[in-house]
Amino acid sequence: MRAIFVVVMLCLAFVASSAAEPRQVSLMPMPTSVQLETGQLVVDSSFSVAINGHSDARLQHAVERFLDNLRHQTGMPPLDMKLTDPVQAKLIVHSERASKDVQELGEDESYSLEVRPENAKLDAVTPLGIMRGLQTFLQLVHTTSDGFAVPAVTIEDKPRFPWRGLMIDVGRHFIPLDVLKRNLDGMAAVKLNVFHWHLSENQGFRIESKKFPKLQEMGSDGLYYTQDEVRDLIAYARDRGIRVVPEFDMPGHSTAWFVGYPELASGPGPYQIERKWGVFDPAMDPTQERTYKFLDSFIGEMAELFPDQYFHIGGDEVNGKQWDASPSIQTFMRAHDLKSNQDLQAYFNQRVQKIVSKHGKTMLGWDEILRPDLPKNIVVQSWRGQDSLAAAAKQGYRGLLSFGYYVDLMWPASRHYTVDPMTGAAANLSPDEKQRILGGEACMWSEYVSPENVESRIWPRTAAIAERLWSARDVTDVSSMYRRLEDVSQWLDWLGLTHNSSYGLMLRRVAGSSDISALRTFTDVVEPVKDYTREETAAAEATSLSPMNRVIDAARPESATARHFEELVDVLVAGRASADTKQEIRSFLTRWRDNQTNLQPLEIQSFLLKEIVPMSQDLSAVAAAGLQALDYIDRGERAPETWTKQQLALLEQAQKPKSQLLLMVTPAVQKLIEASSGQSVQPPRK
Amino acid sequence: MRAIFVVVMLCLAFVASSAAEPRQVSLMPMPTSVQLETGQLVVDSSFSVAINGHSDARLQHAVERFLDNLRHQTGMPPLDMKLTDPVQAKLIVHSERASKDVQELGEDESYSLEVRPENAKLDAVTPLGIMRGLQTFLQLVHTTSDGFAVPAVTIEDKPRFPWRGLMIDVGRHFIPLDVLKRNLDGMAAVKLNVFHWHLSENQGFRIESKKFPKLQEMGSDGLYYTQDEVRDLIAYARDRGIRVVPEFDMPGHSTAWFVGYPELASGPGPYQIERKWGVFDPAMDPTQERTYKFLDSFIGEMAELFPDQYFHIGGDEVNGKQWDASPSIQTFMRAHDLKSNQDLQAYFNQRVQKIVSKHGKTMLGWDEILRPDLPKNIVVQSWRGQDSLAAAAKQGYRGLLSFGYYVDLMWPASRHYTVDPMTGAAANLSPDEKQRILGGEACMWSEYVSPENVESRIWPRTAAIAERLWSARDVTDVSSMYRRLEDVSQWLDWLGLTHNSSYGLMLRRVAGSSDISALRTFTDVVEPVKDYTREETAAAEATSLSPMNRVIDAARPESATARHFEELVDVLVAGRASADTKQEIRSFLTRWRDNQTNLQPLEIQSFLLKEIVPMSQDLSAVAAAGLQALDYIDRGERAPETWTKQQLALLEQAQKPKSQLLLMVTPAVQKLIEASSGQSVQPPRK
Repeated sequence: MRAIFVVVMLCLAFVASSAAEPRQVSLMPMPTSVQLETGQLVVDSSFSVAINGHSDARLQHAVERFLDNLRHQTGMPPLDMKLTDPVQAKLIVHSERASKDVQELGEDESYSLEVRPENAKLDAVTPLGIMRGLQTFLQLVHTTSDGFAVPAVTIEDKPRFPWRGLMIDVGRHFIPLDVLKRNLDGMAAVKLNVFHWHLSENQGFRIESKKFPKLQEMGSDGLYYTQDEVRDLIAYARDRGIRVVPEFDMPGHSTAWFVGYPELASGPGPYQIERKWGVFDPAMDPTQERTYKFLDSFIGEMAELFPDQYFHIGGDEVNGKQWDASPSIQTFMRAHDLKSNQDLQAYFNQRVQKIVSKHGKTMLGWDEILRPDLPKNIVVQSWRGQDSLAAAAKQGYRGLLSFGYYVDLMWPASRHYTVDPMTGAAANLSPDEKQRILGGEACMWSEYVSPENVESRIWPRTAAIAERLWSARDVTDVSSMYRRLEDVSQWLDWLGLTHNSSYGLMLRRVAGSSDISALRTFTDVVEPVKDYTREETAAAEATSLSPMNRVIDAARPESATARHFEELVDVLVAGRASADTKQEIRSFLTRWRDNQTNLQPLEIQSFLLKEIVPMSQDLSAVAAAGLQALDYIDRGERAPETWTKQQLALLEQAQKPKSQLLLMVTPAVQKLIEASSGQSVQPPRK
Repeated sequence: MRAIFVVVMLCLAFVASSAAEPRQVSLMPMPTSVQLETGQLVVDSSFSVAINGHSDARLQHAVERFLDNLRHQTGMPPLDMKLTDPVQAKLIVHSERASKDVQELGEDESYSLEVRPENAKLDAVTPLGIMRGLQTFLQLVHTTSDGFAVPAVTIEDKPRFPWRGLMIDVGRHFIPLDVLKRNLDGMAAVKLNVFHWHLSENQGFRIESKKFPKLQEMGSDGLYYTQDEVRDLIAYARDRGIRVVPEFDMPGHSTAWFVGYPELASGPGPYQIERKWGVFDPAMDPTQERTYKFLDSFIGEMAELFPDQYFHIGGDEVNGKQWDASPSIQTFMRAHDLKSNQDLQAYFNQRVQKIVSKHGKTMLGWDEILRPDLPKNIVVQSWRGQDSLAAAAKQGYRGLLSFGYYVDLMWPASRHYTVDPMTGAAANLSPDEKQRILGGEACMWSEYVSPENVESRIWPRTAAIAERLWSARDVTDVSSMYRRLEDVSQWLDWLGLTHNSSYGLMLRRVAGSSDISALRTFTDVVEPVKDYTREETAAAEATSLSPMNRVIDAARPESATARHFEELVDVLVAGRASADTKQEIRSFLTRWRDNQTNLQPLEIQSFLLKEIVPMSQDLSAVAAAGLQALDYIDRGERAPETWTKQQLALLEQAQKPKSQLLLMVTPAVQKLIEASSGQSVQPPRK
């Protein structure tokens, strides 16, 4: 059963071919097994594809889309690179059989790809595997001195986990359909297979209900998807081998429902769409039969609209205050021997589960829904961690990990990358229990994203999570990940994603000018504060009406410049720096030292720049300190103690968040200063 | 009748407000009259618009789109900046009456805009004027130290010409609908009002005919617009105040028709879709009644689909060879006393004109259709020049200028900008005759464009043509035009046009790498060869199947870097250069001199880079010569004659096109060398 397991890790980045020419193989997620062979398959205007074996509309769409991408990547006109017959084809696609009409959890996604100089063969059990393999093929196309080519290679590949998702919260901020479609393109490129659509929140109910039209009419500010649009998105996702799982959060996170239907709530109305962030009191009334009647009808409507087997009912973060305050609910709880609000919610979940089940669906919910009284076929999505996942698995429940995959928390990709569903208590599960851990989902909660910057929060970091969920467990080399992540990021540019292109536009707005070089130099080395610090440190309370046009909204979650600079400094401090490396460090520091002077003219022009002045001054001061340290190191002198002390105090100050930004080059400069003071200094290389 | 005519030219770029703060007013096309007042109108989240007076769906769409653009520009959330009542509104829009259901030539597009610190009033006769004024308002929004604002200003504005068009040839290369829509957005932004859709060519018939389905089925390679798509585009254009005029080129330029319907042609078939460029022999048979029966039916179908009053029949470039070779056509000509092929085509045009007229439309065609036997209501589009336009006007025909506005010829914006429909023989027309000159059209012929780079060929240069056609005749300051053109170009980025964003992507493809800094340095200072030189100098014949992935396809039609460098050199040569200017010149030259070294590693990687090696070497050599010249000038020395001679010989060599590119910094370096040799040297400034 187990495929040959040859992880070709370090040698993958550059492999010399027999023609003594560098051949680039940069795949993400890393396949199960990659074996490079001799030679390469030329990709020119005569390139063509044949579908052999099973064929259907979806497979044909996939091949057409593949050809579109390939033409775009190589600049070929639309008349080249056709579908053809197997005799002539340069790529022969063979699927054994059809996949399910409605994509199912655990369907076979494996494929094998054999590229030889004469042609390539892509084999899979189902069209799903073909789709995954076509993405691998696209990643293999590179430029040579003779033309475009794919290296001869044999790849066997299949996913480690069957559920590899991305959740997008469209409740807190509405995300238009075209943006969602771009994200589906991104998901397909990195072999993710579940789009989890968080459709209702305190701040908005985002889907048309024909049975209960006041849901969207009163609960969405007019920002919702029509059912036609939903069907369109589902078809778009299906075409890319992606399931669509809707989430309707209940009984909490549901204020937007109550604007139109206050009778669902546990406290008296009227209700307004919530503008602030946090956990709010309103919750559905679990003690009223009308609540279940409503949900039966509503879930029935949605179960028909969404073909997927799974149906997410949220279930998280009920603070219970409305329940505590309601005499009738308290009476009900006593009458039914419900000792706590958790018991009451469990009662609610049981009732809802029966409704979901009645409409032919399997229920999914966040950690809180887990109670032994629910049937074993439900699935628990854990925002609490692997231990909670393991606990569920032990009780016989299937689970998904989302703890550690919250991309709104602005963690570096490396941190998400180390989170494995099978660690912690999960590591000690029995093989059967382990089977119950289905995979995980990256989560894009949307308090602080707009349609303009949501892609820059999701991508490229989600590709690292996608690799964690697809690739073998021991694919953990962080440098390799970052190198390939950069390639994926650029590939997503070709697909039209805006995670990179929005940066310059947003900076121009901040600067109020087309001259953004100084602002870019600054923003390239800062990151938004992490975790929930933005919410905790806001000067004025942020709401869903706050503009998102600040530097923090443009700044990337992870500074590639700072990471690169720190790598250079590490080499220097280890005494292994070449003259070029030293020069590069010096040139970075010089640019940063002088940057505040360059930024100053803009500060007068734009109100959006004012808040970064203190950190821009910090950057200049920190860089000046770094340059002095470099001078000491260059001269082989030990920096005076008082100087060192002063600089470290300066750095301590500069480490603190300002305007909700972090200055990311400070740790590396600290290493320089420590090195210059002799704490770890190495003799300079001549 | 004439509006106050105050052109505020030089003072428009930066005007000091009472608060001693620079206020930027950068409008394109320049309005008829602009008077700056004191103060500014703040644009914050409370900004709102009211529609006063006439209202209809199109006007509401325009205001909604305006608000979308404003929110995007300022980063405000979709819930802010609403439509409201006139008492609260910050912008009150007032249209006197409705515009026509089908937009007509010459409808009133005038508006007046009065911005005061308390609010703004936009008045127009029709919603068309409101649309134009809303674009002006958007261009006025700028960033200040306190927030976004619009300066207090009084603007009166109306177009100089009623027909201001952009033609896109979708025949030679198919341009997808979404790309066309982006171009319509660009057109609306610069107040163009006619989209001329060149729908059929030898290389493709691009629209669905339900009556003659073999037209698209056999003549388009599957690349055509369905009638639903056409209706969608027309509605999109109408919403932006843009008429859509279809062109079906006949009797020549029509090979693609004959693939499905060879009986229309003057020579025996079968016919193939043409892949090459040029003028071809096949032409419709003007002597057969079946031709007119077909055209009657086809034009009837299209006349119903396209609501515009005008219908373009092409009529250009018939070489007559098929007519010469056909005995039956020769017999017909003799029988009808048609002495030349021109006479035969005139006969054809008369017949077609009657058909066009029968279907309620007014005929439009290129220069060649002009013959006194056609009725006076037809319109002639001149690719030959103002004299031909004037000749038509004298005969009572209305005309449009396209000569001088062919953006595929890669001219600089400044050259298009100087082309005025009213110069040459047109200048001497009587007032009545002048009225017959309706305006002009920028033309995007598509031999060498793909969906990827077509926008970079149209924009931003077409905005300069738009200004020529909208603004007063004496708006001719080229420096001001370029300054504002750059602002327009960046504004088009916000609208989603890809003329700038495609550049980096295309260079990455050329480089086969994400490291494109050296390639970009090179490409920033080259331009594609001009006029028809690309066709004339191709190593292998280019066809509609040729990939467009070369440096020439990525290179911008006009090098802003070279223009800027030449401005600096002009200042230096005039003896007015500051130390900063000199430093900037030196730093440009140094980067260019060293660039070939930086480019070399890429050349090994990518076959697409090979062809630029000679010119990249030229750039290094030319820059080295420039640096030496600069040294002579700096030292106040006169360069030796032999040296000067050598350098000028080098430059002469470097001026020559290579790989169909032009090195644009050569003339400026020549000025430096001439200055250093004392031909125009000024004493250095200390």
